[in-house]
Amino acid sequence: MAQKRPFVTRDQLEAIVSRYPTPLYLYDEAGIRANVRRLLDAFAWNPGFREYFAVKATPNPALIAILQEYGCGVDCSSETELLLAEAMGMRDSDIMFSSNDTPLAEFAQAHRLGAIVNLDDLTHVDAFVRAIGGQPMPDTMSLRLNPGGDFACANGIFGSPEDAKFGLTEPQAIEAAVRLRDLGVRNLAVHALLASNTLTNDYYPALARLLFGLAVRIQREVGIHVPFVNLSGGVGVAYRPEEPDNDIVAIGEGVRRAYEEILVPAGMGDVAICTELGRFMLAPYGALVTRVIHEKHTYHDYLGVDACAANLMRPMLYDAYHHITVMGKEDAPATHAYDVTGMLCENSDRLASARALPETRVGDLLFVHDCGAHGHSMGYTYNGRLRSAEVLLCEDGSTRLIRRAETPADYFATLDVLPVGKRLKRARP
Amino acid sequence: MAQKRPFVTRDQLEAIVSRYPTPLYLYDEAGIRANVRRLLDAFAWNPGFREYFAVKATPNPALIAILQEYGCGVDCSSETELLLAEAMGMRDSDIMFSSNDTPLAEFAQAHRLGAIVNLDDLTHVDAFVRAIGGQPMPDTMSLRLNPGGDFACANGIFGSPEDAKFGLTEPQAIEAAVRLRDLGVRNLAVHALLASNTLTNDYYPALARLLFGLAVRIQREVGIHVPFVNLSGGVGVAYRPEEPDNDIVAIGEGVRRAYEEILVPAGMGDVAICTELGRFMLAPYGALVTRVIHEKHTYHDYLGVDACAANLMRPMLYDAYHHITVMGKEDAPATHAYDVTGMLCENSDRLASARALPETRVGDLLFVHDCGAHGHSMGYTYNGRLRSAEVLLCEDGSTRLIRRAETPADYFATLDVLPVGKRLKRARP
Repeated sequence: MAQKRPFVTRDQLEAIVSRYPTPLYLYDEAGIRANVRRLLDAFAWNPGFREYFAVKATPNPALIAILQEYGCGVDCSSETELLLAEAMGMRDSDIMFSSNDTPLAEFAQAHRLGAIVNLDDLTHVDAFVRAIGGQPMPDTMSLRLNPGGDFACANGIFGSPEDAKFGLTEPQAIEAAVRLRDLGVRNLAVHALLASNTLTNDYYPALARLLFGLAVRIQREVGIHVPFVNLSGGVGVAYRPEEPDNDIVAIGEGVRRAYEEILVPAGMGDVAICTELGRFMLAPYGALVTRVIHEKHTYHDYLGVDACAANLMRPMLYDAYHHITVMGKEDAPATHAYDVTGMLCENSDRLASARALPETRVGDLLFVHDCGAHGHSMGYTYNGRLRSAEVLLCEDGSTRLIRRAETPADYFATLDVLPVGKRLKRARP
Repeated sequence: MAQKRPFVTRDQLEAIVSRYPTPLYLYDEAGIRANVRRLLDAFAWNPGFREYFAVKATPNPALIAILQEYGCGVDCSSETELLLAEAMGMRDSDIMFSSNDTPLAEFAQAHRLGAIVNLDDLTHVDAFVRAIGGQPMPDTMSLRLNPGGDFACANGIFGSPEDAKFGLTEPQAIEAAVRLRDLGVRNLAVHALLASNTLTNDYYPALARLLFGLAVRIQREVGIHVPFVNLSGGVGVAYRPEEPDNDIVAIGEGVRRAYEEILVPAGMGDVAICTELGRFMLAPYGALVTRVIHEKHTYHDYLGVDACAANLMRPMLYDAYHHITVMGKEDAPATHAYDVTGMLCENSDRLASARALPETRVGDLLFVHDCGAHGHSMGYTYNGRLRSAEVLLCEDGSTRLIRRAETPADYFATLDVLPVGKRLKRARP
């Protein structure tokens, strides 16, 4: 079994939490940088390759700025994500707006920024035209495909696009392409996301074959230039130590083979590859750090920690596995089975059930692995719980607070229309 | 089949949303008042009866203030909920602190307010003593029981307490009672929550029998006075029109019979009954109001609305059913099957799947029933989506904004430790 090792030592972590109290999100700058370099190397064969980081995964500008140094753009899906991109100095082709069920005001906002808008439905052509109210259409737009049926490859079924709310059918995509061409759009990209968190090197290559085929059809039949193919996200990470991780070099090579088989012979060797990775970019390089505050023995053995589903919802929402290391006991045998629980009044509020761990005590620090994406961003404030700070462990070993912890005043902010809400904004426990 | 009717007409609702844009939470003051009166009537046989509203269900002080008029207290589970109770002028026996995996600082905070603290574990006796640092123990405390096994009654199994993280075993409860008595606690209540959202008039009576038995044991064997028995929450509401609703009069009567069979013969006819209802108090009297902004036809028929799981998470998290009325089409035949989806980049972001509805068009208003509890309070900000306003429809037909909608500035508030975050706080789309 592969081992999962924290990217900090116990002494380092105790020093960090003495400054930034638990629960806490900690990110690893060195890991983020090494990973983005691997991705760029894997697609270096494609001169136009660009990663558009899926902001929804981890909407922290300090982390996105690291990716920006390597030329990454952003994939936005909402008003606030567009505002964040704009504040970071991104515009035009730096921003992909991949949304669905899109409010018209957000189409207009994306258009003002010059973002590349990825339409999710045939009716969104007219909706977009209405949204921008008579302004000229953008030069470049994109369409999201939903091929229907099951999406499979040699080693299994990835997903059932037919039951997904996203995207246009292929006939609708052709119809939309004709409409957009006639409206003056000169470049039309294609996009699809057909599975989430895949652990196979075949997902991107199989998706690429599908999208390359559509790209050729659109360029040939509709006569509109296809500037790039957007493979979106879906490349996952191994949350469990026993899972084999994705090999991004093999994935890039698989996409290259499909490219040379389909696009190059069609005279489309100028097409760029884009990705909208989120989890793959950051999940392994972020951890939730929490301390054991209670040990309870009833019908199960429980470790009560100072984090809860407000800080990490994936175990509750998806029954997701997150590996846990007890700091200082990295190499101790896992002799006990614990339910690791938070304090929400929900029995499903737990980081793990019947998890094999070394004998653990009140005061021990837990390092919850692979929380760098869809972790903090999925937090809520149920039971009045507050979302934690985010801290970056820099390459030089120093730390930097990149998001402060919520306070009661933040929690009560939207009650300021009530007299009692004004008092609560000043409340101190 | 029973019908679910909105508590507003279409014209009323269009007038409301012209002032407070969708998505929006709307609450019905008249319904809330009628329901709390029914509850008080059902338990009028018990002079000490008191409902402690479960703040986590709907932490809005304007709604809680209505319940407060009828003498209700509050059941708090966290720092912020205690702050809210304090700001509303509650203290001492107005506040039940029913928590689990409790941070010690919150025990101390509850103690400062004079709240009745409900201990969740045997080790919490010592934790509480440490937390209050040498101050005298409170006169009155409470213990949360977990009887283990399955909790059943004549018409089925309610739940499996054995797999729940909450409460003390009965032997631990007795041991804790002895410890607390010796520490100077003079009154010790008992509490349990063994099931959630039950739809049977037998749940409370069956639970009451169990807790009354423990109360008698504690008073007799430990020699500590039991002032009240806390039946907690768990009494549900019928989310589906075809489900038979709970009859609170029958429930109150069932508890009375158990009381007269067990407590009165034991000479404990002075024991008060407490409840910590949340869902039962407010769920039917709150609705999520949302407008259809897209209609999409691919492999399914979709209605895209301007709300999403950020506004109502229960369908995604629990696969929960919420009835939907298309305003103005209350009596039209349900001839179509729609997936009603929000805009999150999650396929599970939907208010309903394959829901039978009248033919529905872009612009129609949807009234999503039974969102008055565990609705707004479970919202999150994933994909950068913002939580909506809450509005009270007053008994006189007027409306009152009781929580404003979140703004981008609220969403970005905790980024103010970064230079870009300072700019984002002033961002306008």
